[in-house]
Amino acid sequence: MVHTFSAWNDTIVALATPPGIGAIGVIRLSGENSIIIADALFKGKDLLLQASHTLHVGILKNDNEELDEVVVSLYKAPKSYTGENIVEISCHGSPFIQQQIIAACIQKGARLAKPGEFTQRAFLNGKMDLTQAEAVADVIAAHSLAAQQTALKQLRGGFSSDLKELRDQLIGFAALIELELDFSQEDVEFANRSQLEQLIATLRESTTQLMHSFKLGNSIKNGVSVAIIGKPNAGKSTLLNALLNEERAIVSEIAGTTRDTIEEVLNINGVLFRLVDTAGIREHSADHIENLGIERSRQNAAKADIIIHLTDLTDKDQSGITWLRQYGEKVIEVYNKNDQVSPENLHANASGGGPAPGIYISAKNKEGIETLKSVMYERAIGETIKTENTIVTNARHYAALKKVLECLNDIKAGMDNNLTGDLLAPDIRRCLYYLGEITGQVEADRDILGTIFGKFCIGK
Amino acid sequence: MVHTFSAWNDTIVALATPPGIGAIGVIRLSGENSIIIADALFKGKDLLLQASHTLHVGILKNDNEELDEVVVSLYKAPKSYTGENIVEISCHGSPFIQQQIIAACIQKGARLAKPGEFTQRAFLNGKMDLTQAEAVADVIAAHSLAAQQTALKQLRGGFSSDLKELRDQLIGFAALIELELDFSQEDVEFANRSQLEQLIATLRESTTQLMHSFKLGNSIKNGVSVAIIGKPNAGKSTLLNALLNEERAIVSEIAGTTRDTIEEVLNINGVLFRLVDTAGIREHSADHIENLGIERSRQNAAKADIIIHLTDLTDKDQSGITWLRQYGEKVIEVYNKNDQVSPENLHANASGGGPAPGIYISAKNKEGIETLKSVMYERAIGETIKTENTIVTNARHYAALKKVLECLNDIKAGMDNNLTGDLLAPDIRRCLYYLGEITGQVEADRDILGTIFGKFCIGK
Repeated sequence: MVHTFSAWNDTIVALATPPGIGAIGVIRLSGENSIIIADALFKGKDLLLQASHTLHVGILKNDNEELDEVVVSLYKAPKSYTGENIVEISCHGSPFIQQQIIAACIQKGARLAKPGEFTQRAFLNGKMDLTQAEAVADVIAAHSLAAQQTALKQLRGGFSSDLKELRDQLIGFAALIELELDFSQEDVEFANRSQLEQLIATLRESTTQLMHSFKLGNSIKNGVSVAIIGKPNAGKSTLLNALLNEERAIVSEIAGTTRDTIEEVLNINGVLFRLVDTAGIREHSADHIENLGIERSRQNAAKADIIIHLTDLTDKDQSGITWLRQYGEKVIEVYNKNDQVSPENLHANASGGGPAPGIYISAKNKEGIETLKSVMYERAIGETIKTENTIVTNARHYAALKKVLECLNDIKAGMDNNLTGDLLAPDIRRCLYYLGEITGQVEADRDILGTIFGKFCIGK
Repeated sequence: MVHTFSAWNDTIVALATPPGIGAIGVIRLSGENSIIIADALFKGKDLLLQASHTLHVGILKNDNEELDEVVVSLYKAPKSYTGENIVEISCHGSPFIQQQIIAACIQKGARLAKPGEFTQRAFLNGKMDLTQAEAVADVIAAHSLAAQQTALKQLRGGFSSDLKELRDQLIGFAALIELELDFSQEDVEFANRSQLEQLIATLRESTTQLMHSFKLGNSIKNGVSVAIIGKPNAGKSTLLNALLNEERAIVSEIAGTTRDTIEEVLNINGVLFRLVDTAGIREHSADHIENLGIERSRQNAAKADIIIHLTDLTDKDQSGITWLRQYGEKVIEVYNKNDQVSPENLHANASGGGPAPGIYISAKNKEGIETLKSVMYERAIGETIKTENTIVTNARHYAALKKVLECLNDIKAGMDNNLTGDLLAPDIRRCLYYLGEITGQVEADRDILGTIFGKFCIGK
């Protein structure tokens, strides 16, 4: 654990609840002097004499000026989130009063916390490793069941224990290498060699598996972007409405959804699908605007994880949008207006004998929508999410795992070339370093920590 | 106290912190089954066995699905805000997780709280009277020091004790009336009469004083609206900027300021001044738009508590805006561009001999701005706010006090006409009724309670 990273003997303070008006707000203090600072403002009993994990109702006063009636929660070090003394002041949900209380705490010796500084202290004090600290932000940002479940698993150390497994295997490998060195003059080499090869294969497989989970993890965490693309009047907006049908009300309750870049959000089996910028394709009247629409469709198609290519079955030209072919597997072929075409015409319309492969729907009558949703889910997630499997959701972890795999490949190549153990050792050390970087067991540099905790909200 | 108002044996649940993403969010349960419901979700220790006013860290699970890592605060009846069992669940500040936890509580038997229902229960359970309950909403809405201080005083029962004083006087009066009746056959009437007259005079004065404080109270609670009106180029926007100078940053931090109707907010000695819709006056190019601007100025002037009439000292025509004269005392005359006019010209420009009465400023050089601020404060508040005086801030209380005064006037008229005590009694009863209505001592009807608590936010 990195105890030299910064001097954090000072006491920090921040609003822990969202800004704005509510029934209550919570102001959080962490540091050696938390309880002393709170006690200087709290009128009633002596907070310094109270037990940890207790609640106290009273008046906050700063120099005889009443601030609020509050409830104070005490957590004494080391039994707290940060491992330090923590005081939480639950006050009325008035931004004005919250500002005054924070100002009073600062006057009594606290300083304003930086974003993520509470969690950073928890990490620095060994209360959690780096993947768990990162999971805190993910839990807060979770907008879907799948994202919440994977983040909670990571928060509770699920990913860390997988990494420990990898690390233990690697240390086992290093031990075998040493053994081989010890017996290098004798005739026991070959048995060890096959055991070594077996171990390195297992290690590479585990790492690859974790890396593979990142695509899924990323979809779970950030949602799957979907572009609905089709010719005018193919029924794009009707399909959009059919897909969103019962979802719209639920989705609109989720605060923080960025409406600037995301048009609509759809939840399929707990995974978010972001239907990106379909508006641009929907409107076109003059030629110029239509061209702009096509340009936007092209951009959306390039960026999307999934493209729904919507073709109107009543259209005489069933060739659809040809430039979509380059996107191969990303494209889901969907044929709309199934209700307006008799089965015989279906054969006639589709190119060649028999209907073209794809999903046949009637967006208007909401037929085939559930099938389309399952195909979207299948295409994005591959299979049902097994929450017991560890899923990598963090780009930093993915990058480190990639480095780990490179090292493992180097070790394998070295072994294939019959390098001796002492020549393999640097690669093993690098491998252990990159694994340690994920959990923060090796000394993370200021930049990495700054990047990780800078993304947090203040008060966490 | 009104215990028959509604059956509230059920347990209610709501998000108590503002919606949105933050470090933490707090979900509040109140009712007989609060702890049982929380315990059904909480994994770890048995919450039913824990002491009141204690904190417990653990995992919330609903049917084996992890909801979050949380801290649970326990308050056992009657030592709680509502007087019932209260559980506060402090969870991660994710709207998604909060929804899930609330849904899980509902599944275990709670129901969603209505706005203000927690405070309503506190009132119905006798934890606070109606003025104190109303003060809760005022404390939360307080945007300035003065508003906060008056609301906190009311919350702590300051207004209630003033009303008790009035009530006690009135009961004392009733007792004297009875005494007079007892001795009506004898020759003691005149002594009592003068004592009665003295008492009714005191009562009328106290009531009038409280009613007078309402203008101040309203200014403190809702802010003082100010219109800056002047001819084009008089320097209105420069003055606005000079007034807001150091305030802008502070003010912009206050969430919930309605930007639709209020342009800028200024804090003078802890009182909010709302500089209303000055934008409309600032912009005028075409004639049509200029006319619209004048129309808006007129509307603003009519609605404003204070009008700043800004005249440009370098303007040859010093008559200013003549239609403002109708507003008499509301208008503060302010002469701008003091820096561009020599003292001799000042005399020449101002109508007649010597400078016109008013405040001479240079908005550009920020000269005279502090003087203007003191005059604005003086004009709006009259004198420095003495927080030890009770200030009526609530229109409902004002209306009730008006009824009380009417009754007192009726009693006085009755006494002037030498009515006997039994004829004065109905007015005394009415008087006591209206006083009791303020604190909720007489049975408040559903509509009144609905109106009061309906204005609260959910979770309070």
